Amino acid sequence: MPLVRIALRRGKPAAYRKAIRDGVYLAMVESFGVPERDRFILVSEHDEDDFDVSPDYMDIQRSADAVIIQITARNTRTTDQKKTFFAALVERLKADPGIRPEDVFISLIGVEKDDWSFGNGIAQYA
Amino acid sequence: MPLVRIALRRGKPAAYRKAIRDGVYLAMVESFGVPERDRFILVSEHDEDDFDVSPDYMDIQRSADAVIIQITARNTRTTDQKKTFFAALVERLKADPGIRPEDVFISLIGVEKDDWSFGNGIAQYA
Amino acid sequence: MPLVRIALRRGKPAAYRKAIRDGVYLAMVESFGVPERDRFILVSEHDEDDFDVSPDYMDIQRSADAVIIQITARNTRTTDQKKTFFAALVERLKADPGIRPEDVFISLIGVEKDDWSFGNGIAQYA
Repeated sequence: MPLVRIALRRGKPAAYRKAIRDGVYLAMVESFGVPERDRFILVSEHDEDDFDVSPDYMDIQRSADAVIIQITARNTRTTDQKKTFFAALVERLKADPGIRPEDVFISLIGVEKDDWSFGNGIAQYA
Repeated sequence: MPLVRIALRRGKPAAYRKAIRDGVYLAMVESFGVPERDRFILVSEHDEDDFDVSPDYMDIQRSADAVIIQITARNTRTTDQKKTFFAALVERLKADPGIRPEDVFISLIGVEKDDWSFGNGIAQYA
Repeated sequence: MPLVRIALRRGKPAAYRKAIRDGVYLAMVESFGVPERDRFILVSEHDEDDFDVSPDYMDIQRSADAVIIQITARNTRTTDQKKTFFAALVERLKADPGIRPEDVFISLIGVEKDDWSFGNGIAQYA
């Protein structure tokens, strides 16, 4: 069910972007209680002018390889689950495609079970 | 008030995309309690690599014509209203531009009445 | 912490878009309780067909220079803070790059403190 939006700078190869999508998906299945095949991911690539990311907020050093990941999902996860998920996601992206942990920004949006339709005009979770 | 984000694969004609926008708008007015002229819709077109949509989650068969529709709106609708809206939206998109019901993914985000400004720096609903 | 998404019509110069980003950031620091350097802003530029904004909803006259600003932030602000922020933001964008107040549409999404990771896979606010 999560809807994932990934934003990054333009110019990365397709395999690099696929590794990010795979990492997010696998971390969601592994650590966020998301069923297999529940994969809905949109990627937007931005020119430098349209990707304005703090180089040092919270004294975390970010580079031009920063990735902004926003995930809309049901609001059922505990704080501990979110923490575990954040750590798992960063670990996966570090392994492949090799993104520095400092460069991974994650934002969650929690919504209700009747806020989703996966097709056919039905609220499958309501 | 709703802010609508529509994502689809790149390459559809302008008339096709207009039909989607019209369908979403008309379904909102018809079934979601949205006033006429309250139309704020952003469309993003994605290359195949940046549009990663499960071909079969929940055993719903999705094609390259899948459309992801995310709507931020006030959190005042009941579950029944949401169900009616999902069904109406899918019906409209099936009629024009002819999108299979399986290919319509909908995500809602509910927010508060003081989360909106329609212009002039005023919170018109607060 | 806020994640800002700005959408506008394609074709504005880089300096114009930078002025919008600066204005949003400065208004957030000034009037929305956002720390300095907390700047995470994504801009998407849309062709006319993909930027469908009501020309007159609520009898506010919008032009092709309309800007749609959606901000995901913690849900801790009061209605008064939001009102002050909306007014400050519109004032700044009017001063630079010279956007008409009627053309500024703002949508907020409130989330929880454990919905954020600013890097390193840690939920810094939780």
